[in-house]
Amino acid sequence: MRWRYVLRSIGALIFCLGVTLLLPMAFAAAYRDNSLPALVKTFMIALASGTGLYVIFRSGHVSVVTHREGMAIVALGWIGAGVVGALPFLFSDTFNSFVDAFFESVSGFTTTGASVLTDIERVPRGILMWRSLTHWLGGMGIIVLSLAILPFLGVGGMQLYKAEVPGPIPDKLRPRMRDTALILWRVYFLFTLAETILLMFGGLDFFDALCHTFGTMATGGFSTKNASVGHYGSAYVDVVITVFMLIAGINFALHYLALLGNPSAMWRDAEFRFFIGVVLVFILVSALCVYRSVYGSAIDALRYAAFHVLSIITTTGYATANYEQWPPLPQAILLFCMFLGACAGSTGGGMKCMRIMVLLKHVYLELMHLIHPRSVRHLKLGGRLVPDDIAKSIWSFFILYLGLFILSSFLLAAMGVDVVTSFSAVAASIGNIGPGLGEVGPADNYAHLPDAAKLLLSLCMLLGRLEIYTVIVLFVPEFWRR
Amino acid sequence: MRWRYVLRSIGALIFCLGVTLLLPMAFAAAYRDNSLPALVKTFMIALASGTGLYVIFRSGHVSVVTHREGMAIVALGWIGAGVVGALPFLFSDTFNSFVDAFFESVSGFTTTGASVLTDIERVPRGILMWRSLTHWLGGMGIIVLSLAILPFLGVGGMQLYKAEVPGPIPDKLRPRMRDTALILWRVYFLFTLAETILLMFGGLDFFDALCHTFGTMATGGFSTKNASVGHYGSAYVDVVITVFMLIAGINFALHYLALLGNPSAMWRDAEFRFFIGVVLVFILVSALCVYRSVYGSAIDALRYAAFHVLSIITTTGYATANYEQWPPLPQAILLFCMFLGACAGSTGGGMKCMRIMVLLKHVYLELMHLIHPRSVRHLKLGGRLVPDDIAKSIWSFFILYLGLFILSSFLLAAMGVDVVTSFSAVAASIGNIGPGLGEVGPADNYAHLPDAAKLLLSLCMLLGRLEIYTVIVLFVPEFWRR
Repeated sequence: MRWRYVLRSIGALIFCLGVTLLLPMAFAAAYRDNSLPALVKTFMIALASGTGLYVIFRSGHVSVVTHREGMAIVALGWIGAGVVGALPFLFSDTFNSFVDAFFESVSGFTTTGASVLTDIERVPRGILMWRSLTHWLGGMGIIVLSLAILPFLGVGGMQLYKAEVPGPIPDKLRPRMRDTALILWRVYFLFTLAETILLMFGGLDFFDALCHTFGTMATGGFSTKNASVGHYGSAYVDVVITVFMLIAGINFALHYLALLGNPSAMWRDAEFRFFIGVVLVFILVSALCVYRSVYGSAIDALRYAAFHVLSIITTTGYATANYEQWPPLPQAILLFCMFLGACAGSTGGGMKCMRIMVLLKHVYLELMHLIHPRSVRHLKLGGRLVPDDIAKSIWSFFILYLGLFILSSFLLAAMGVDVVTSFSAVAASIGNIGPGLGEVGPADNYAHLPDAAKLLLSLCMLLGRLEIYTVIVLFVPEFWRR
Repeated sequence: MRWRYVLRSIGALIFCLGVTLLLPMAFAAAYRDNSLPALVKTFMIALASGTGLYVIFRSGHVSVVTHREGMAIVALGWIGAGVVGALPFLFSDTFNSFVDAFFESVSGFTTTGASVLTDIERVPRGILMWRSLTHWLGGMGIIVLSLAILPFLGVGGMQLYKAEVPGPIPDKLRPRMRDTALILWRVYFLFTLAETILLMFGGLDFFDALCHTFGTMATGGFSTKNASVGHYGSAYVDVVITVFMLIAGINFALHYLALLGNPSAMWRDAEFRFFIGVVLVFILVSALCVYRSVYGSAIDALRYAAFHVLSIITTTGYATANYEQWPPLPQAILLFCMFLGACAGSTGGGMKCMRIMVLLKHVYLELMHLIHPRSVRHLKLGGRLVPDDIAKSIWSFFILYLGLFILSSFLLAAMGVDVVTSFSAVAASIGNIGPGLGEVGPADNYAHLPDAAKLLLSLCMLLGRLEIYTVIVLFVPEFWRR
């Protein structure tokens, strides 16, 4: 492992992060709120430390990045962003403890949206803008990570996306990454612009529209209001956000092809069809349940069901109703959505539809094999053969995901957190969703948990966001050996 | 599929089942309770219908049983036993509805131990003896199924046990099955005798000792008392049952080797070591938690923790305390034990340690492969290579188990059952445990659920008990084609 290269990359990342602080600084200046000094201070620290790291470790040309270096940059980069992102919260006295500030920052960069803020509306706008911006930046990182970096690192079956990445296909990792990133970010930026304008038509001011757009496109879920999107009580706003949550849950490589004039590529994608099918069934079933028991009108039932199914399955976490008061079936559906997640290559978290499809196909083949013991098993997805080693990556991802979920829930329960809250807080953190059930339900937040629980959940968010392997290898002694 | 052969086998099974009714009939006669007519009536029906089926379909010699025939006999045999087993409950008016009687009977034969009886102590002893006997007979079936039938049917990785089965090893399925069965049943009978005598030393009369022994050795959990084993409030009884639950959770092929004078074979078995390790850790951690918060003395904490960890992990389901009032961590541990289960080849249900071990090893290999991409992955268990197709069987079993759990929970929630009760009732049924959490917790029972829920849970018990595949193939149209 060439640590000089790893640290140089982290330095560049922190420098860029510092530059993005200009946006919340502009809002703080425009609204004349008292958060400007905190933001400026962070800006200076980020620029100085980023430059410092880059300059100190600048020597040594690197043409090919190894697996280990790639994973170290990704994992340490995200942790570094979490630390830098915590500074504005600390400097502005939004939080007194570093743990709280770090939790909020990691929750932002991992696009989780779990919050320890008890009264969001009292926080200065510069800080709220930074909080939402961490989502948007995290989302940018995720798109590139899942479509351009992980497929080459061989993490959890993401290799399936090697062929689907837009851009030129040279053999080396770095030039391709850069081109792919630029293409996908253009798409991401376009949708961001569109949603912001549409939300402003709905009566939101530029600040609120931008913050909620950041939360939607990154499938994050931070709001500027205590009652989340429910604050507006507007069907138009709900519909706009519902549509853009759906968009954010779709593979960005497909969006790119669609924008290039090839929308049929979307429908030819097996994962897209699976995702849309699951979403439709879940919305209809949930709407039917809440229609009978909670909402009088079919339109309202559909509106709330669609919003929450998409909010949870895309792992956004916005809320317009307290789903803990819904009947058992839609509650169970939402709980299941926490694990399922959206499409790979989207900004959403969770296990991802692609993996679930591979697992289900595998079960089907196994059943057929039991009935016809001499039949040969070939696992195909969308007509293409899934090689055995990719299938193995996916199985082991699935088991690791569940294992991590169980272990972390145990640890949380050991801290005295009740069972339902423990299990759902961990599920909501690993899945990068935000709200869970029980004491971390849509009407509550994570502030009351002990510090150790907040740190554990921050780790869960990072693990979930970086497809587990990328972080967990850091804990394997083997990784650090020469 | 040669249906004549399948139905002839079912006929023989029902005939044998009829003969076992002599035991509860003897108790009914001895205690002069009013259940004798109901038992005699069932006895006659079973003998007549068993003989009838056998005679009608007697022609046609069969030397080799196919996969499909094997699965059909196992699945239909268990369902047939469930139907015949329900008759005494119906004829004696213990239940007025067939659904309740069938639920109780299936819960017995699958060694689940979930009950819809609201006042056990008012039921005549002949019926209670039959109820407990269904456990013991189900346990006999399971030992043979898991060690002598499933390994040859290729179900869910049980092929790993092909080499471990005691008895001669000819190529054909039937003669080997018969010999293996007789050897293992001798071991089962011996332990049954030992526990009965030890429980009688603890002050239980012959009837209660026998019933509780049946419930322990089969890891069933039916008691003759409303308060389950807690009724006796005796440390001696608790310890005896704890030890025999542990015994019942171990592979019976290992018991056989140990009784033959080769106890070291047990410790050389990787699954046994894993099981013992997990049990010890869970007992110690749970005891520590309940020591601080529930029980004053360390001895009591250990006694109750050991009893319940073993009761749930072996999927017995006896209770001496209401664990829903324990702190969060031991509750989470018990919830996890519901899925884990004991050793393959025991009478316990759940996923089984062997499968979890294979899955964990797979994850470990995958991690190593990520760090060293050129390393070769060989999955070994206890020093022996696990072939790829067996590993695939195990993965797909795991996914099917979880998929079934989620789907059934959805269906139960759709019937209006609350989320915690739905999830835990299904987990407790598929895992053949008995008590769950919420409204089906250790202090409640399943009587208040709607009929559709009872039928669904009966199906879950059968699926769980027959390692899912054996039942689910019946629902695949492909299975019924020529």
